[in-house]
Amino acid sequence: MQIPKPYLLFLGDVRDALAVKMARGILTWRPEACVGQLRLDDQTPSLGIDDLPLEAGRERGAQTLVVGTANAGGKLPEHWVDTLEQAIELGYNVASGMHQRLAAIPRLADAAKRQGVKLFDIRHDAPALEVGNGKRRSGRRVLSVGLDCAVGKMFSALALEAELKSRGEKADFRATGQSGILIQGEGIAVDAVVADFISGAAEYISPANDADHWDLVEGQGSLFHPSYAGVSLGLLHGAQPDFLVMCHELGRPHVRHLPHIQLPSYAACVERNLANARTTNPDVVLAGFSINTSNVDEAQARAHLAEIEAEFGVPATDPVRFGVGPLIDHLIERTR
Amino acid sequence: MQIPKPYLLFLGDVRDALAVKMARGILTWRPEACVGQLRLDDQTPSLGIDDLPLEAGRERGAQTLVVGTANAGGKLPEHWVDTLEQAIELGYNVASGMHQRLAAIPRLADAAKRQGVKLFDIRHDAPALEVGNGKRRSGRRVLSVGLDCAVGKMFSALALEAELKSRGEKADFRATGQSGILIQGEGIAVDAVVADFISGAAEYISPANDADHWDLVEGQGSLFHPSYAGVSLGLLHGAQPDFLVMCHELGRPHVRHLPHIQLPSYAACVERNLANARTTNPDVVLAGFSINTSNVDEAQARAHLAEIEAEFGVPATDPVRFGVGPLIDHLIERTR
Repeated sequence: MQIPKPYLLFLGDVRDALAVKMARGILTWRPEACVGQLRLDDQTPSLGIDDLPLEAGRERGAQTLVVGTANAGGKLPEHWVDTLEQAIELGYNVASGMHQRLAAIPRLADAAKRQGVKLFDIRHDAPALEVGNGKRRSGRRVLSVGLDCAVGKMFSALALEAELKSRGEKADFRATGQSGILIQGEGIAVDAVVADFISGAAEYISPANDADHWDLVEGQGSLFHPSYAGVSLGLLHGAQPDFLVMCHELGRPHVRHLPHIQLPSYAACVERNLANARTTNPDVVLAGFSINTSNVDEAQARAHLAEIEAEFGVPATDPVRFGVGPLIDHLIERTR
Repeated sequence: MQIPKPYLLFLGDVRDALAVKMARGILTWRPEACVGQLRLDDQTPSLGIDDLPLEAGRERGAQTLVVGTANAGGKLPEHWVDTLEQAIELGYNVASGMHQRLAAIPRLADAAKRQGVKLFDIRHDAPALEVGNGKRRSGRRVLSVGLDCAVGKMFSALALEAELKSRGEKADFRATGQSGILIQGEGIAVDAVVADFISGAAEYISPANDADHWDLVEGQGSLFHPSYAGVSLGLLHGAQPDFLVMCHELGRPHVRHLPHIQLPSYAACVERNLANARTTNPDVVLAGFSINTSNVDEAQARAHLAEIEAEFGVPATDPVRFGVGPLIDHLIERTR
């Protein structure tokens, strides 16, 4: 699965900024892949890029219309389907992260067949997978892990990729969730594969590579999250990381959505991840911390990061506030 | 999903004893649920029960024809489909653990619809699941865990259920794999659910129950198996066990099918399982060991079990050679 770029970002007629978060992520990380946005009315939040009708998007070279929104229920409103059908008639491929499959909507499936374009249901499309085999692969792998869900694992991996590339290193972000897949144009939503194939999916997206090539694998969930830990462990085994980057959001009171489940300490989370990762890569080490400190002021943030560095002896940064330079310095130093 | 009993066990025309292992498991654990066997020829291994044609099976009350075999490729031979169709016409439900879905074979689906009977594709049928929530549930739960795949986790859970029932305790085996589901008539193949729902599936099959009721949850895989550990961890979190029974096969040289992956020590495996289980049940303890010692003589077996008991201070037994009485004594003692 490789989603043809560039994209026209379809925002429908959603009303709140959170609903366009996925489209905003694509624009943030792959601005060169976004020719513009398509909003169905003026009350839809703008991403600050050109509003383009479908025809104009095609003229600017757009290959794929991306449904870059999340809505409650995950179902496509009927009038959105009208727009998608028109897009297909104009030669667009369509990509969606909705639960409802594009391919299961007959008029879209028929139109796509007629036009010879592709429908990408990124939650559901996965290649035929094998179960993981745990065999060592060449190349360098960094996996972002975390104390919880939604603590910046995708952001951190993308920031590491960008910084490595800016220093002339060979590096690829490896997407394991739907936003990441839309950003990268390929990947597998590991939480949506059949349970037996979690680690196999991680092995698939991060194959053997040049010895000096970096894979930045997007982590998912947490080993301590009772809903998703199975996905996290399979991903940890399959990604076979040489380096872990521990992610967190400062000030989170408990495991997300589960007030009865306490968060682990940094030390417990590092130890548990390293211990499990050694099953497929005995040489794995902790490379540093990537902490979202937006809940505190800069002085408090620096103090917290300094405490972590003192405890673990590796760099700790906020990737938004301070960048990931210190993590990359450390990674390059350790592989020299 | 509740598969109607009793069963007629369909063995097709397989040639080796291993291929009828699933049918043999059903007969071993639920002899009262098996009215007989149906073999397509005399060279098929017999389970030692009555050979019954389809009509005679129905006369003895059989409700479901169970495809109790495994074959390479997981595909139903065409002449087996003939037999299944005849069975449906006679009013049988049909249950299968094959990869190929019964419901995807048009003539079986049509016949089932016409006759008002059900097709059970036990690898694939799962109810609509929620993600796990990790909330404590009432009742007692025992989960069989292991150093590896295929070390007797299903056998141990079934043996514990049988022994508890023989002592007048309220107990239910909770099936998480296809053989277990056929034995119990219900359950979910947790390795076949969408990865996000592993722990949710475990919560579903083992709901809140009477405070003195025992759930014996069938474990899967191992936290140390690079192919399946995600399933094992999700199951561990979702099952929320109060007690773990550690299973192993004495003399296994390495992780099954993966000569490059070492087995953990008993101590490491116990520690890792307990640490992870505490996420959803801080009170979890190790209840004992269930070891397949068939590779050594009885004196060696007793010596090995005694060593384990000395190291861990809990009973260790071979459930086939010595029964699970000591484990049940210990469980009952600890809950008195």
